[in-house]
Amino acid sequence: MTEIIVSALGKIILHGEHSVVYGRSAIACSLNIRTYLKLSQTKDERVSLVFPDIDLTQSWSLEEVNSIQFSQGCEILNPNPPTEDVIKQLKKIAGSGATEINNTASIVFLYIYLSLCKNRKQGIELKVKSELPIGAGLGSSAGFSVCLSSAFLILTGNVSAPGSDNIWKSDDLELINKWAFMGETLNHGTPSGIDNSIATYGKAIKLKSGTVHKLDKIPNLRILLINTKIPRCTKDLVAGVRRKYEMYEGIITPVLNSMEAIVSRCEAVLSDMTGNHCDVTSCYKKLQDLIDMNHDLLRFLGVSHPSLESVCKTCQQYGLHCKLTGAGGGGCAFCLISPETTEETLQTVEIELKKQNFECWETSVGGNGVMCHDPACGTTSSIPDFLKTT
Amino acid sequence: MTEIIVSALGKIILHGEHSVVYGRSAIACSLNIRTYLKLSQTKDERVSLVFPDIDLTQSWSLEEVNSIQFSQGCEILNPNPPTEDVIKQLKKIAGSGATEINNTASIVFLYIYLSLCKNRKQGIELKVKSELPIGAGLGSSAGFSVCLSSAFLILTGNVSAPGSDNIWKSDDLELINKWAFMGETLNHGTPSGIDNSIATYGKAIKLKSGTVHKLDKIPNLRILLINTKIPRCTKDLVAGVRRKYEMYEGIITPVLNSMEAIVSRCEAVLSDMTGNHCDVTSCYKKLQDLIDMNHDLLRFLGVSHPSLESVCKTCQQYGLHCKLTGAGGGGCAFCLISPETTEETLQTVEIELKKQNFECWETSVGGNGVMCHDPACGTTSSIPDFLKTT
Repeated sequence: MTEIIVSALGKIILHGEHSVVYGRSAIACSLNIRTYLKLSQTKDERVSLVFPDIDLTQSWSLEEVNSIQFSQGCEILNPNPPTEDVIKQLKKIAGSGATEINNTASIVFLYIYLSLCKNRKQGIELKVKSELPIGAGLGSSAGFSVCLSSAFLILTGNVSAPGSDNIWKSDDLELINKWAFMGETLNHGTPSGIDNSIATYGKAIKLKSGTVHKLDKIPNLRILLINTKIPRCTKDLVAGVRRKYEMYEGIITPVLNSMEAIVSRCEAVLSDMTGNHCDVTSCYKKLQDLIDMNHDLLRFLGVSHPSLESVCKTCQQYGLHCKLTGAGGGGCAFCLISPETTEETLQTVEIELKKQNFECWETSVGGNGVMCHDPACGTTSSIPDFLKTT
Repeated sequence: MTEIIVSALGKIILHGEHSVVYGRSAIACSLNIRTYLKLSQTKDERVSLVFPDIDLTQSWSLEEVNSIQFSQGCEILNPNPPTEDVIKQLKKIAGSGATEINNTASIVFLYIYLSLCKNRKQGIELKVKSELPIGAGLGSSAGFSVCLSSAFLILTGNVSAPGSDNIWKSDDLELINKWAFMGETLNHGTPSGIDNSIATYGKAIKLKSGTVHKLDKIPNLRILLINTKIPRCTKDLVAGVRRKYEMYEGIITPVLNSMEAIVSRCEAVLSDMTGNHCDVTSCYKKLQDLIDMNHDLLRFLGVSHPSLESVCKTCQQYGLHCKLTGAGGGGCAFCLISPETTEETLQTVEIELKKQNFECWETSVGGNGVMCHDPACGTTSSIPDFLKTT
């Protein structure tokens, strides 16, 4: 095998952002905007990482990379987070890129490479293409980590690449997810594990008080994802809600309970939609109501933004239902596309939103997770041109 | 005495509209936009009512009016609502005016007049001027009823007109309020009694499950009242919330609890503001937060309107805090004017709002109730020119 192409999903929070911080549930969904990675074995004795979306092109000699001492050993089936000493050595050879995202990507790459491929004699080159906006709360870093771990685990024979049906063995998915979590740890310190789980398994996840519960019974829902491109700081937004909570606990607590009830109701509706006797129109109506209600409650918590209000207002003018997703204060919103939404409406809304300088993607949530695109099986049709073998 | 001039207040709901329907508390405040009434004794044998704001000019001969049979008797200290038979007779002689508001005003007038002044020999003329928009949920009908009852009760010697200090005997206020409630019954069928109580006593009232609790410890707060002039139907709005409640009880109930907590917190802050050790800035900040939060929860209930959102957005752009008041779906909103709001800001906001075709009043809430304007005491300065004796 000289080439491995894999891809992983992004994620959005359907409901429960912010309330999850106070022990209520959240539902995160896979977002069918993918990060792609092509691993090629090369004849030179180098490892190279090319990730144009973050302006990253780095290359190291095998000798340099293999010089790092992994004192912790390397248990492939039970990965441990890197020690401080390893991180220090990784940082040293990662060099100093233009941005922090840049450096972190190199460190994650080197860590997973060394953990799984240390002392290989053959050079490799990795090309990465993310269709997700980077750092917009859509799980781009988890997508990158899942791609890295699946590609290296396939390369080293630790997991089997699935066939064109894209059905992986469950142990293999578990292992990919564990390694991706290591990458996320390097990225975020103490990640929740949601992003890598979604990128690996797809579908949806319910999270409550740190416990992750997979939701397999969820339909594929079409959405319009809108990026306001307003940068926001999650930490500041979370802190703002905390101040409000401390000042008005008696007023905020019931609203958090209402958000919890929205999550439960949403879970029930999604499950209904995968059943045989589902009234599609009524289910979509409920999902739309839940979206409207939760957006207003998030606004109540103070995490909306004029740009997000503009997005919602524009969508509402065309009968669509929209909420912010993630931390708020800018960032992204999504709008549910129901079977009754005409293509004409959708196009008009997109034009209106783009006029306001927002970015839009027509995509879906709730799809399957990590994929292996085997050129032999013709599953490469969807991969970006940049990664196609010429 | 040949002339009596009285005036009564309007009201706004500070917090608790809609949630009050579900057994939570509401706070209603007196609104210093008054309804004025001048009663003059005349030499003709007629009773006349001139109320230009509703295009009403009616006149009846004393003979015609006195022909109505009050089979129920007439206990001045314990008024009873009119019987069906009396209402029928009143409707007959009230005639058919151009509008329902018009007819009802005549009926209320005739009922209170006959109950208190039946068989008087001297003619009277009543001129009424309401500075409140009629039918906008600001208690204009209660203001009219309070003016009628206080004027007739003074005329007949059943209550004593207060001096220039405007301090009424509490029994007198109680009696005025009882008669005003009769007027409201003719107007609204089964009124809550809030509007007439506020118009009579001023200050504020807390209502919960039908129980009225007077709030005397409240400061005079400056507000900007904004009328969107969008007509709305309270009944439909209440029914819309009911449907939502029935569909999503688990989600709506905690929000109603949050609204209850907003009312409690507001009551506590208002009480603090009348104390000696009040941090004015901090109290206003809290009142502003409560206004913002409650508006978002009302929006969540689905009772906002694009016009109300425009009002709030415009106010927010100038750092002011605004919520809808009353049933929503159009109607009125108010904006708190804090000591830190500059006159320049206020003027700019008003210009912006008027550009959008909204009506604005700079006024106050929490003031005293019914007033008697005694020309001898020079308290007539504030009364409208229309009522001044030439």
